[in-house]
Amino acid sequence: MGAVCWGLVAQLWSPLPGGVTAPRGFQAAGSTAGLKASGRPDLALLLAPQGAVCAGTFTTTVVRAACVDLCAARLGASGGRARAVLINSGQANACTGERGLVDSLAATAALAARLGLAPEEILICSTGVIGVPIPMDRLLASLDPLVASLSSHGGSAAARAILTTDLVEKQIALQASLDGRSVRIGGMAKGSGMIHPDMATMLGYLTCDAGVPSDVWQAMVRRAVDRSFNAITVDGDTSTNDTVLAFAAGDPLSPAHFDALEAGLTAVSQHLAKAIARDGEGATCLIEVQVEGASDGEAARRIARTVCGSSLVKCAIHGRDPNWGRIVAAAGRAGVVFDPQAVVLWLGEHQLMAAGQPLAFDRSAASTYMRGRAAGTYLVDDTVVIRLVVGPGPGEGRAWGCDLSDQYVRINADYTT
Amino acid sequence: MGAVCWGLVAQLWSPLPGGVTAPRGFQAAGSTAGLKASGRPDLALLLAPQGAVCAGTFTTTVVRAACVDLCAARLGASGGRARAVLINSGQANACTGERGLVDSLAATAALAARLGLAPEEILICSTGVIGVPIPMDRLLASLDPLVASLSSHGGSAAARAILTTDLVEKQIALQASLDGRSVRIGGMAKGSGMIHPDMATMLGYLTCDAGVPSDVWQAMVRRAVDRSFNAITVDGDTSTNDTVLAFAAGDPLSPAHFDALEAGLTAVSQHLAKAIARDGEGATCLIEVQVEGASDGEAARRIARTVCGSSLVKCAIHGRDPNWGRIVAAAGRAGVVFDPQAVVLWLGEHQLMAAGQPLAFDRSAASTYMRGRAAGTYLVDDTVVIRLVVGPGPGEGRAWGCDLSDQYVRINADYTT
Repeated sequence: MGAVCWGLVAQLWSPLPGGVTAPRGFQAAGSTAGLKASGRPDLALLLAPQGAVCAGTFTTTVVRAACVDLCAARLGASGGRARAVLINSGQANACTGERGLVDSLAATAALAARLGLAPEEILICSTGVIGVPIPMDRLLASLDPLVASLSSHGGSAAARAILTTDLVEKQIALQASLDGRSVRIGGMAKGSGMIHPDMATMLGYLTCDAGVPSDVWQAMVRRAVDRSFNAITVDGDTSTNDTVLAFAAGDPLSPAHFDALEAGLTAVSQHLAKAIARDGEGATCLIEVQVEGASDGEAARRIARTVCGSSLVKCAIHGRDPNWGRIVAAAGRAGVVFDPQAVVLWLGEHQLMAAGQPLAFDRSAASTYMRGRAAGTYLVDDTVVIRLVVGPGPGEGRAWGCDLSDQYVRINADYTT
Repeated sequence: MGAVCWGLVAQLWSPLPGGVTAPRGFQAAGSTAGLKASGRPDLALLLAPQGAVCAGTFTTTVVRAACVDLCAARLGASGGRARAVLINSGQANACTGERGLVDSLAATAALAARLGLAPEEILICSTGVIGVPIPMDRLLASLDPLVASLSSHGGSAAARAILTTDLVEKQIALQASLDGRSVRIGGMAKGSGMIHPDMATMLGYLTCDAGVPSDVWQAMVRRAVDRSFNAITVDGDTSTNDTVLAFAAGDPLSPAHFDALEAGLTAVSQHLAKAIARDGEGATCLIEVQVEGASDGEAARRIARTVCGSSLVKCAIHGRDPNWGRIVAAAGRAGVVFDPQAVVLWLGEHQLMAAGQPLAFDRSAASTYMRGRAAGTYLVDDTVVIRLVVGPGPGEGRAWGCDLSDQYVRINADYTT
């Protein structure tokens, strides 16, 4: 599938209440196991229908948690099949030595027995403080009530239980009429990005009640993740535990509708990814960078990510300063070849550059544009949009981030001392 | 040449007053041409002796200034020979279209006529605001007095004239007895890093009064730059104009002493690079990350640069918070494979991790360590040192940066509006 056509998405897909349990056949639960000192919910369970395929994408860091290794190994061995995922918040179970793997195995084995499944069908994710093991006695003691509370309305409870320092819960569900029936996609995510970044793990869970072959689903999820979760940058740091798991189960969908399904999956993923970027502590706005005219989509996304991640651009936007020099300088160092004489730059509706050279523009109006836009629907946000054309190529891509505020520095400087 | 042995450097090389004109035969000048609104010095000239070889390293960005293109083209055509470099501060002459190249050619032609040299022997560098052309009438009118003031004591005047928003002048000279005679290396640099980052171009100039074949000199300079200017990160942004030019001219040095010369050249480069990192606006300390045990030096430097550039690590150090989780998480995403179970981490004399797992340590003492160390000699600075061992490999490398403060954000948010 090529670029996402947003007009088509909006025509086809409409929002539903709820999240991961909006698609038919999925159950979820959330509870308080006492893993967090705060007493907030900290244990979630998502159960997929029999026959579900599951695609996973994981952090690329070398220092990754044992639970991530276990998920990747099990999905690899099963050829992309899984039935359930257990998620604890409070401890990342990373940098905990061999104990990390032992605890992950014990938790999934105990849950498998209660669900009547094989341990190999269970995945586990952890998020929280690095270097601290999970209080396993509390986790194990909470499995019975957690399983008992599984419900087709449990999506919101699960979405709450996976949060760490997030300010808001992040979930969405979309519905479309495809192949003569209603198809639903749901999702939930956590990730606070900027606050207490030792716990800033990004976790995303997607569900779909249409049947899709495992290899098709895996490729579809990979592309959707590249265009969403992999296109956000909050502070450039990658977690030890970042994971997206996507389940699909239901009557087989005709291949003629795969593109339409992927458009919905991409929209759900982008909604969640943007919610993570906007929830960064200290952030006052969401930034969207649209790059067009690159040699291909990957090149465009790379430029977009580099602009979005530039501390200088982020500071300028925080100060509502239409500083075009910083934007084009950041684009130049993205590692992508383009002709600087072809650059066209827009900030919202204000054109700042043409043919690689600055234009006269109304600086005050451009600054006012950045100060705020009205909130829109689930597809149109109150976002500062930067549009950069780098040539005549077909490649386009987007990235999302947030501004860099002095509050971010204070929070992160004063965290433990 | 392998890793720099600092004991050997300190034994061989001793500091001298001055900078680029400390080596014999070099002349320099600095003047006020009226290019800067502030009325500060803004035009510098460095003249090398006849027969000088010149090695250049340039910004890797796609969006680079015309003067950078001109320097690279002339050094390429001459096989690494040049006699002089003219440096203006105030305007970067980047994103100025064809006029950028026309002005650079005109300036070097006018200077060549006054020096009795061919235009091809003259290089030019610009630093300042992006998108603004150089006021050429003022520059050209200032060339006669600039040439008239050339002197073997002009290094400091030149070092002042290349600054933009730097707080301090940056120069150094070292001397050693090699090959039965005294050899001198001098250097000057500018780069304020964090303040008014549209003008944050890094420029470095090195001089040496020993004769070295052009290809040997080029390779030596490349390695020294990789271990110094390419190993600093202030905010991750790359300028349109970053340039290092290194001249060598004098009686030929015996190849037996090339390693000793390179040690001195590396020491001069690192001194200047660290001075740039420490001069970042809002910075309260210099950070040095030492990585050992990687597969090779490039892998080690890459890990060191990633840790040094992490916003989370920079904020933690600003808050004097010994937050080891952020350091090891940043190392993990450097794109270098290592065994997380092998990681050993030190903060100054405080060991925080062994075998990939956290150790108990005196958090208060570690925080006190970060609050400040006594200033030392030109090789030993008041620096927060992070030492990370990632395995049993032979590769080691260092990187330097500074902390991220709320003052940085305020300065960069409020720059033009």
